[in-house]
Amino acid sequence: MISRYSRPEMVQIWEPATKFRIWYEIEAHSCDAMADLGVIPRENAEAVWKAKDVEFDVARIDEIEAVTKHDVIAFLTHLAEHVGSDDARFVHQGMTSSDVLDTCLNVQLVRAADILIADVDALLAALKRRAFEHKMTVRVGRSHGIHAEPTTMGLTFARFYAEMDRNLRRLKTAREEIATGAISGAVGTFANVDPRVEEHVCAKLGLTPEPISTQVIPRDRHAAFFAALGVVASSIENIATEIRHMQRTEVLEGAEFFSMGQKGSSAMPHKKNPVLTENLTGLGRLVRMSVIPAMENVALWHERDISHSSVERGIAPDATVTLDFALHRLTGVIDKMLIFPENMLDNMNKFPGLVMSQRVLLALTQAGVSREDAYAMVQRNALKVWEERTDFREELLADEDVVAALGVEGINEKFDLGYHTKHVDTIFARVFGEA
Amino acid sequence: MISRYSRPEMVQIWEPATKFRIWYEIEAHSCDAMADLGVIPRENAEAVWKAKDVEFDVARIDEIEAVTKHDVIAFLTHLAEHVGSDDARFVHQGMTSSDVLDTCLNVQLVRAADILIADVDALLAALKRRAFEHKMTVRVGRSHGIHAEPTTMGLTFARFYAEMDRNLRRLKTAREEIATGAISGAVGTFANVDPRVEEHVCAKLGLTPEPISTQVIPRDRHAAFFAALGVVASSIENIATEIRHMQRTEVLEGAEFFSMGQKGSSAMPHKKNPVLTENLTGLGRLVRMSVIPAMENVALWHERDISHSSVERGIAPDATVTLDFALHRLTGVIDKMLIFPENMLDNMNKFPGLVMSQRVLLALTQAGVSREDAYAMVQRNALKVWEERTDFREELLADEDVVAALGVEGINEKFDLGYHTKHVDTIFARVFGEA
Amino acid sequence: MISRYSRPEMVQIWEPATKFRIWYEIEAHSCDAMADLGVIPRENAEAVWKAKDVEFDVARIDEIEAVTKHDVIAFLTHLAEHVGSDDARFVHQGMTSSDVLDTCLNVQLVRAADILIADVDALLAALKRRAFEHKMTVRVGRSHGIHAEPTTMGLTFARFYAEMDRNLRRLKTAREEIATGAISGAVGTFANVDPRVEEHVCAKLGLTPEPISTQVIPRDRHAAFFAALGVVASSIENIATEIRHMQRTEVLEGAEFFSMGQKGSSAMPHKKNPVLTENLTGLGRLVRMSVIPAMENVALWHERDISHSSVERGIAPDATVTLDFALHRLTGVIDKMLIFPENMLDNMNKFPGLVMSQRVLLALTQAGVSREDAYAMVQRNALKVWEERTDFREELLADEDVVAALGVEGINEKFDLGYHTKHVDTIFARVFGEA
Amino acid sequence: MISRYSRPEMVQIWEPATKFRIWYEIEAHSCDAMADLGVIPRENAEAVWKAKDVEFDVARIDEIEAVTKHDVIAFLTHLAEHVGSDDARFVHQGMTSSDVLDTCLNVQLVRAADILIADVDALLAALKRRAFEHKMTVRVGRSHGIHAEPTTMGLTFARFYAEMDRNLRRLKTAREEIATGAISGAVGTFANVDPRVEEHVCAKLGLTPEPISTQVIPRDRHAAFFAALGVVASSIENIATEIRHMQRTEVLEGAEFFSMGQKGSSAMPHKKNPVLTENLTGLGRLVRMSVIPAMENVALWHERDISHSSVERGIAPDATVTLDFALHRLTGVIDKMLIFPENMLDNMNKFPGLVMSQRVLLALTQAGVSREDAYAMVQRNALKVWEERTDFREELLADEDVVAALGVEGINEKFDLGYHTKHVDTIFARVFGEA
Repeated sequence: MISRYSRPEMVQIWEPATKFRIWYEIEAHSCDAMADLGVIPRENAEAVWKAKDVEFDVARIDEIEAVTKHDVIAFLTHLAEHVGSDDARFVHQGMTSSDVLDTCLNVQLVRAADILIADVDALLAALKRRAFEHKMTVRVGRSHGIHAEPTTMGLTFARFYAEMDRNLRRLKTAREEIATGAISGAVGTFANVDPRVEEHVCAKLGLTPEPISTQVIPRDRHAAFFAALGVVASSIENIATEIRHMQRTEVLEGAEFFSMGQKGSSAMPHKKNPVLTENLTGLGRLVRMSVIPAMENVALWHERDISHSSVERGIAPDATVTLDFALHRLTGVIDKMLIFPENMLDNMNKFPGLVMSQRVLLALTQAGVSREDAYAMVQRNALKVWEERTDFREELLADEDVVAALGVEGINEKFDLGYHTKHVDTIFARVFGEA
Repeated sequence: MISRYSRPEMVQIWEPATKFRIWYEIEAHSCDAMADLGVIPRENAEAVWKAKDVEFDVARIDEIEAVTKHDVIAFLTHLAEHVGSDDARFVHQGMTSSDVLDTCLNVQLVRAADILIADVDALLAALKRRAFEHKMTVRVGRSHGIHAEPTTMGLTFARFYAEMDRNLRRLKTAREEIATGAISGAVGTFANVDPRVEEHVCAKLGLTPEPISTQVIPRDRHAAFFAALGVVASSIENIATEIRHMQRTEVLEGAEFFSMGQKGSSAMPHKKNPVLTENLTGLGRLVRMSVIPAMENVALWHERDISHSSVERGIAPDATVTLDFALHRLTGVIDKMLIFPENMLDNMNKFPGLVMSQRVLLALTQAGVSREDAYAMVQRNALKVWEERTDFREELLADEDVVAALGVEGINEKFDLGYHTKHVDTIFARVFGEA
Repeated sequence: MISRYSRPEMVQIWEPATKFRIWYEIEAHSCDAMADLGVIPRENAEAVWKAKDVEFDVARIDEIEAVTKHDVIAFLTHLAEHVGSDDARFVHQGMTSSDVLDTCLNVQLVRAADILIADVDALLAALKRRAFEHKMTVRVGRSHGIHAEPTTMGLTFARFYAEMDRNLRRLKTAREEIATGAISGAVGTFANVDPRVEEHVCAKLGLTPEPISTQVIPRDRHAAFFAALGVVASSIENIATEIRHMQRTEVLEGAEFFSMGQKGSSAMPHKKNPVLTENLTGLGRLVRMSVIPAMENVALWHERDISHSSVERGIAPDATVTLDFALHRLTGVIDKMLIFPENMLDNMNKFPGLVMSQRVLLALTQAGVSREDAYAMVQRNALKVWEERTDFREELLADEDVVAALGVEGINEKFDLGYHTKHVDTIFARVFGEA
Repeated sequence: MISRYSRPEMVQIWEPATKFRIWYEIEAHSCDAMADLGVIPRENAEAVWKAKDVEFDVARIDEIEAVTKHDVIAFLTHLAEHVGSDDARFVHQGMTSSDVLDTCLNVQLVRAADILIADVDALLAALKRRAFEHKMTVRVGRSHGIHAEPTTMGLTFARFYAEMDRNLRRLKTAREEIATGAISGAVGTFANVDPRVEEHVCAKLGLTPEPISTQVIPRDRHAAFFAALGVVASSIENIATEIRHMQRTEVLEGAEFFSMGQKGSSAMPHKKNPVLTENLTGLGRLVRMSVIPAMENVALWHERDISHSSVERGIAPDATVTLDFALHRLTGVIDKMLIFPENMLDNMNKFPGLVMSQRVLLALTQAGVSREDAYAMVQRNALKVWEERTDFREELLADEDVVAALGVEGINEKFDLGYHTKHVDTIFARVFGEA
């Protein structure tokens, strides 16, 4: 977790105080369930709730842990300091540390997922707004970095919207993946704790009981969770890359918002660098790197080994905090991004008219010219434009064969931009349900 | 793709002949749709179907490609050799190579997913059968590789079943992720091809039209697909690891089926090595390694660059073929796996009775002993068993404090295995819907 | 291994025939050493060399393996068919399959490394030639994709040279890492085979005896080997990315060589796409993906498990074949790459004179202007150029404060390109040892 | 960076105060060099050293950065607060932020490497001590988790020593890889700063001048650095895995040191869990996950983009801190590890005598029995031992064919353990240079 790439709400999920609070809730709800089942006295269960509004003393728990070398025991000892050791004696009965730890981790991951889902919602709103704003702002589409045919800036935003909308679905699925809890004892057999305790606690915490656990919740769930984060991170890189390209000096079709007071560089005051999207590119890598370790965590030995734990201590906070920050940063970038429609037209006409070549090619074949001949006609005129920067339309109008095939009007008509934007509404309707 | 880790049905999906067949279908259905729209003559569209039963000549297409340096043009040229160049002149009209290539890739991935889904179905059947067979076969549960409490072999199979059942769901989701097609032209604007062509072709091929594409279908879909494969592969490693542990000489609670004719090793004829599950461990790594490149493929430049293509030429066949093989191999291993219930009991009693220590600990606290005292009572007797391999029950019966707290009968009762298996049916019902 | 991204010499290393040939040599040299030691009869050792010129029949060995289920035994059986079973009886004596397999793998990796080293040598030659050719071809240096200060195309080639020269060193180190052999028996104790056999065989094969092996050669060596390949692949991506940027329509400072007969795209004949470098970007990912599995292979169980084997069957040929192809392709790209010096100047002057802003800033502070004031002076003039595309020099000459600080001549002098190229020779001398 | 897996010395390298200190040194040495060259006044250069013993105020610098949005400018502003703005005016002249940032990063990485090298040295000492201690402690070697032939515990330690010794070499090479500095200006041309400044600063900081840089030092160096860390981490996993296996209940040939006061588990007091080595397994994954992002960082756009920066803010501290902690923890584990030689013998004799089967097989063929017959003889007796746990030697003595071939004495002699340890000294001499 890198503090400059962190937001407080997500960071807070991973703080010791939050963890202890969740542990407390798990233990307290467990006591209730055990009291319902007659396993422990009702009054002890009720007494545990005396600590309901306590802020647990993290330093004190650490102090106890330094002696006991066991975090859950340290917590329980501290809890007893609040509710009285007599009342606390039935707390955690029949349970295993992992019942608490693993259920807690999933509560934290669910909360993290909720923030991420809200982040994507905000990003979607920004993308949608910009998409409609620039629905008909024409710019050249590029394949291989080379001009192809006209498209619109709105379509660019719309496809990022569609991609992030898929990510929203993936995050929701990921949230479901890890929204389970387990209170099933040392090897998952419920030998010392009734399955109804698990059911009660899970219901209270908004989780589903893990159908079958061992000492731990199976780690394929977490692997799928982090894999989803990795896909979202890759989409962030995708959007960031587009903006970085737009902002490069020669292209300059868009730019991250630049406040004049900001110093872009210590030495070159005029430089408006796409540092946020470059940063997002790197943050994407940081999130993505958690995927493989999460997958390596799946194969635990028998009913559990603890190799996954240190990995998760790293990647769970790091990947969620970084992704939250990145989504939020990206939303800001999209929201305030500068768009330069004139530059878009200038760029498109760098080789005047050449982006219409495919349409001309098609028209020629439709007019009965063979594919090979049509290809040759387009190519010979296109190369002139390429090499001498003449105007493609004029070259065609001066080419007898082309005029013979398409007519003067037929040629002129091919340079109508409306031809390329005629289905934008159709696509918007598909993406947004409206156009 | 490693031939010894390949099965023909999956390999066949990735053969050139299959690819050309799918290309043909895309082109032919496109012609139909264009004829419906009046864009091309009906008779030309119909003529294309003359090639319906043709097996395309891969060598001939390669020959043409060597000249044209373009695979789709080579194919179209070859197609014209079958349907006549006059009838073929409208084929591919307004389309871009990627319309064909990308839609084809997704058809292949969908078919691959279908095989993988069937593979997991078969694996689930094997796991379920073995789970019920050994529902009550007691063995010791282990955390950290250390004996914890009794569980059953059926629970082990059941949790692998539950994990693979989640993987089934993930594969189905993954299949949906890539079950889209796009025929949207050079930059995805449908400038030269009507969206209804895409709709028709997708309907015929069992795909959904990609709501918004560029020159290509967005690669976050493929990233999610390969990520799902990576999770499945990690689960294979998980199961394989369990079996490898079971088979090690000191444990020997199970083994891969061993036919006596087979030579286990050139030098040690008696060695029954878990080579299949070790192999599966490696295959898991091979599948998993496709996840990161698939994610790196997401950030294409503008409306596409072709960097993803070489990656997919590698990972699409390799990951699906390897995973298919691995799932099939694992199913065979599970199906025929040898289980040694007697060794399970022997192992559990390596330190006689010690696996019951948690239960005793709990009973002591329930009997009113403080946590610390209970802990000390259990520990002092447990250590004797650990060091001298005496019997834990007997040690407890000889410990005045323990007898005072639990009584003789109370102590004996703690060693009843039924205590640990009493919820197996509950868990089976959760996992299988029956027990 | 993808056939279109393969070259025969490297592919041949990984063919079964090559493998069997190496096995044969290991066995035959072992026999010699054992005869020297008096362990087996000299005449049997000599007889084995009867097969010296035999091309082993791969199909026949496969046939035998189908029965014996063991590849080395199959080979030995086939070998006996050539040298007679009586003479062959001492072959492989005291050895373990892994002695042969692992030593063979390293021979193959060493050969692969030799090809890769030669590939990098060829690439270095091309880079050096182009570097000197364009030593003083000025173009704008860019940070964040934004114009910074002038540099030269020769420096670009020179830094790729320096990077690839480091990669050469890394490949040589990697070659050393895996240039070891082991003939140490089932668990590496030399119980059944004298260490001098290992020494003799290694000497004959150009390997060093592995100081301590188990059944296998330790896999940290292979991990380091594949890691080196991953770094080289990342450098390929680096160079490829530069060229892709240079070729994009708006930049067009360079391009992959384009033969006019080639069809760049089915629909847009004028498009000259950087498909080779895009392809190289993808190939880089394919090579790099072998790094993590190679590292996961390090932790084998006890004296070996065979999980690494399937991984290496995949990554050893795939990564080396792909990297060989990629290096060769890149060499061709560099060798024939088109450079457009005029476009470089045009681009540099997109915002006329602005690339000199840092120099002006520095001059102002050196002339006694405070950092803040200098910054403001540069910024106000720079912004005009940025927004109105006026000429920076003229703006400065019209700015009283600037003229007051630097004088007219002082301003003009700041726009001398020689200022930026004055240390090119120094740098070339550092990189190439000559300038 | 996870605080519980951190050690102060390494953490300190990555603290802001350290960074600012290094920045200061770079700037101050630069001023000296510029004064030597007559570029700035000597008294200003000297004045900068007034801050030599200043502890820079991190909070104050952060405060300034909040306004300037630029870290280096913030630092320089703060520096001016110490040395006076007049004397500070020539600081950083002609330099670019990256000159400071990148050179600083490499100083930090070099220091980190030095700690890691010392860590490995300490680990080597522990491994060597334990290797000699248990040079002749016999235990069974295992392939595939199955008993193979006898080896010694000393050989196990010795091979870990050899592996870590290779890692030592790799770390030293990695240290060299990143022991370079660059003060070459905005695009690496030295336009505004003389190369001799770079030379002076690098000499003072123990670095080599980067032969050719852009705005930044090339990232293939850092990729190679992190790759080396990934290999070391994988070796840690390798050693940890061995110990985890040794400690599992059924094997119990060794164990992490266990102090009786420590509570191994909240519920099972007798459990001595290998939690340190399990933890190390996870830490290995955490270190390894930095390799791919470091490689993805290599391909920066043109003369630099800043995508690498956020990645390095994460992985540079995280990977070095975690690896330092892991190496130190592993050294402690090795140092205090419990070894149980009696259990080793017990395990080896689980199937009495069977580990000698290969030797018997070999003896039979040497006695003139055909490979197939020898194989059959060994196999039939071995299977009896396997199934009925009889004694292999006795079975052989009761097998007429075997007795006929080897004689009674010949059979007995095959069960001499000295046969398997006879080359231990040879191997030790190879590894340690002494035996």
